[in-house]
Amino acid sequence: MTGKLVLHEYAASGNCYKVRLTAALVGARLERREYDIMKGETRTPHFLANVNPNGRIPVLQDGDRFIPESNAQSYYLAEGTSLIPTAPFNHADMLHWMFWEQYNHEPNIATLRFWMHEIGSANLDDLKRMQMPAKRQAGNAALKLMDEHLASREWFIGDLLSLADICLFPYTQVAGEAEFDLGRYPNVVRWIERLKGQPRYVAMDA
Amino acid sequence: MTGKLVLHEYAASGNCYKVRLTAALVGARLERREYDIMKGETRTPHFLANVNPNGRIPVLQDGDRFIPESNAQSYYLAEGTSLIPTAPFNHADMLHWMFWEQYNHEPNIATLRFWMHEIGSANLDDLKRMQMPAKRQAGNAALKLMDEHLASREWFIGDLLSLADICLFPYTQVAGEAEFDLGRYPNVVRWIERLKGQPRYVAMDA
Repeated sequence: MTGKLVLHEYAASGNCYKVRLTAALVGARLERREYDIMKGETRTPHFLANVNPNGRIPVLQDGDRFIPESNAQSYYLAEGTSLIPTAPFNHADMLHWMFWEQYNHEPNIATLRFWMHEIGSANLDDLKRMQMPAKRQAGNAALKLMDEHLASREWFIGDLLSLADICLFPYTQVAGEAEFDLGRYPNVVRWIERLKGQPRYVAMDA
Repeated sequence: MTGKLVLHEYAASGNCYKVRLTAALVGARLERREYDIMKGETRTPHFLANVNPNGRIPVLQDGDRFIPESNAQSYYLAEGTSLIPTAPFNHADMLHWMFWEQYNHEPNIATLRFWMHEIGSANLDDLKRMQMPAKRQAGNAALKLMDEHLASREWFIGDLLSLADICLFPYTQVAGEAEFDLGRYPNVVRWIERLKGQPRYVAMDA
């Protein structure tokens, strides 16, 4: 890292919290800049031209350079720390869980949370309502897969906390806000508590 | 890499081709094992217990270890080659495009292609039909973003071919099979031709 680090974010987003949590765990200092996504503040011409042409947060700014995508940002912040295993198989396995998070976990659990908790169940259009059962089923399948993986281990990769855990944590711990019953996944619940007990841990609303 | 490399795949999948293309470009030899996803061959108890509990292909097997998620597999195969930039910002920017591919590109362009080209437009249920306009719009937005990014450069990251290009290539080049008009994105078309001209390039149906 070379310049001042700025996180362009919407604080209630788990993807943004993911980057703040990584920064806290590795001791990096972030300046935070808030955008109200409900008011379209990440779709303004200024934001698209200067921060992210994809119109999404979080974006991590290092000096005059900008990195979109939360998991890429976490990787950038944690480079060279124990959060990123160096053995090639463990490294690839960490990336596997990070890609899985964005493909199988976030579009189900985080999207349902956004719809139910941020937009509000009463305000959803028919297309969203029709997608809810499939997202409910896929979200539970994701939590079940995590629970089975954690049955015999403390962390997702090897014996150490890694970015796989950090990237899966934010939306899992608030899955209840999308009415997922975490009580059905006791290994996940223990893993959440284990992560909360880490030195330098910060909560989502910190 | 330590053992014999086996790719568990469905050859018509762009995600599987992505791994074969990476292997070809770095000179790695893969044994291919085909599963018919239309017949549920990746959801059998044997597959779930021994290959991937997530029931999806591709899976890359190295000896007795298994890596799910195509982009993680490409990273594993390309580790230590020029396809992965080592400068931290470029490396993070490469990961940004790889995560973006799985979140913004694949669920729109690849899913529409699967529905229209593999399942067949006449066979789609109402929920799929209702999602098509949003996926069409998001797919075109993804192609436009790529086209604008490529207006002033040959490759996605710096001046060199990287995994960002490899991972974006498979579903982009067959976007026409989902009735996307690539002619609207001339920089993308030139980039496709540039990639096809690389030494050791292999086509999807090779």
